[in-house]
Amino acid sequence: MLDLYYFPTPNGQKGRIMLEEVGLPYNLQLVNIRDGSNLAADYRKVAPSRRIPTLVDSEGPGGKPLSIIESHVIMTYLAAKTNSPLYPSDPATRFLVDQWALHGQSTFGPTFANVTLFETRFPEDVPAAKKHFGILGRRCFETIELHLEGKDYFVGDYSIADIAHVTWVNRHAETGIDLAGYPNVKRWFETIAARPQVQRGLKAD
Amino acid sequence: MLDLYYFPTPNGQKGRIMLEEVGLPYNLQLVNIRDGSNLAADYRKVAPSRRIPTLVDSEGPGGKPLSIIESHVIMTYLAAKTNSPLYPSDPATRFLVDQWALHGQSTFGPTFANVTLFETRFPEDVPAAKKHFGILGRRCFETIELHLEGKDYFVGDYSIADIAHVTWVNRHAETGIDLAGYPNVKRWFETIAARPQVQRGLKAD
Repeated sequence: MLDLYYFPTPNGQKGRIMLEEVGLPYNLQLVNIRDGSNLAADYRKVAPSRRIPTLVDSEGPGGKPLSIIESHVIMTYLAAKTNSPLYPSDPATRFLVDQWALHGQSTFGPTFANVTLFETRFPEDVPAAKKHFGILGRRCFETIELHLEGKDYFVGDYSIADIAHVTWVNRHAETGIDLAGYPNVKRWFETIAARPQVQRGLKAD
Repeated sequence: MLDLYYFPTPNGQKGRIMLEEVGLPYNLQLVNIRDGSNLAADYRKVAPSRRIPTLVDSEGPGGKPLSIIESHVIMTYLAAKTNSPLYPSDPATRFLVDQWALHGQSTFGPTFANVTLFETRFPEDVPAAKKHFGILGRRCFETIELHLEGKDYFVGDYSIADIAHVTWVNRHAETGIDLAGYPNVKRWFETIAARPQVQRGLKAD
């Protein structure tokens, strides 16, 4: 059985969308990162980084339980387990998918997480941080707007590189970013967000 | 020929250390991200994200030039090109290395980048941001302190998971973090930082 330790944030949603895409049964284990549940000692045993999502596979390699941190690795692990085309095996294509999946995970994601934090949830108004992360956040949107020119997906067919961005782009409205200014992103987002698997993965509950 | 578009930041240094480790000849192409040189139109052609490092291999797969963004992928690409043991091919070990390499790239790195930014370079004093990122930065140190208990390296032998952390831990002093409080990290850091390849990769010039 697969257990996804999860909270409905963009990182958590990446894991859930991938589970929906590969079609394996799974349980959601809610870890409320807003009230600090992720910092409890019992969760540290599951996830040494105390972040979400974490995937626990009761039947990992060799039949032994395996716990996996970092959403990119959760996606590549599930792709390997199911031989999924969402992580292409051709080496040259895989290097391209890796680059854009990691752009989502380590450039767009961490930047946009701070945009949403300071725009919506931070306990005080910090104009300098809002301005700083706002500039970087718009640069991330420009990057993918230019990349998606003439493309249906980030690399070739639909892949984990698309999943790595869609959960973040899904937060555009609450940070004051209007997709009308990014027509390639808008077109791409509407295609990806229309997938039933993505819609189930983005659910808030 | 390999060209590393580079600035001596922790991300840039990851690429340079890996080039030193695999022993291939390379050129450094300095991109001054402090004066905005990365935002120029000619650099966007090399690196669509306009970040560093970017590796350009004039002889990529099929003999064609290839440009690679995201330091994790630069490391896995160079490992594949040289059959390096720094990225183990055994699938179970590789999943562990991937998890900790990505912890470095997408958890420790982006967090600590904001610690150093607000502690050392931000044009104004922003106590709320210093406090917020300071808490997260210390949590990152706690995570790796606990993980490195009884271990010489992050996963088995020396790997890209160690490189993904060493350039960030190298910045500890300038952010007020005393390694005396993290004895496992201190022991690990002294081992890794003693490697001649790492010392060359960490050079400021």
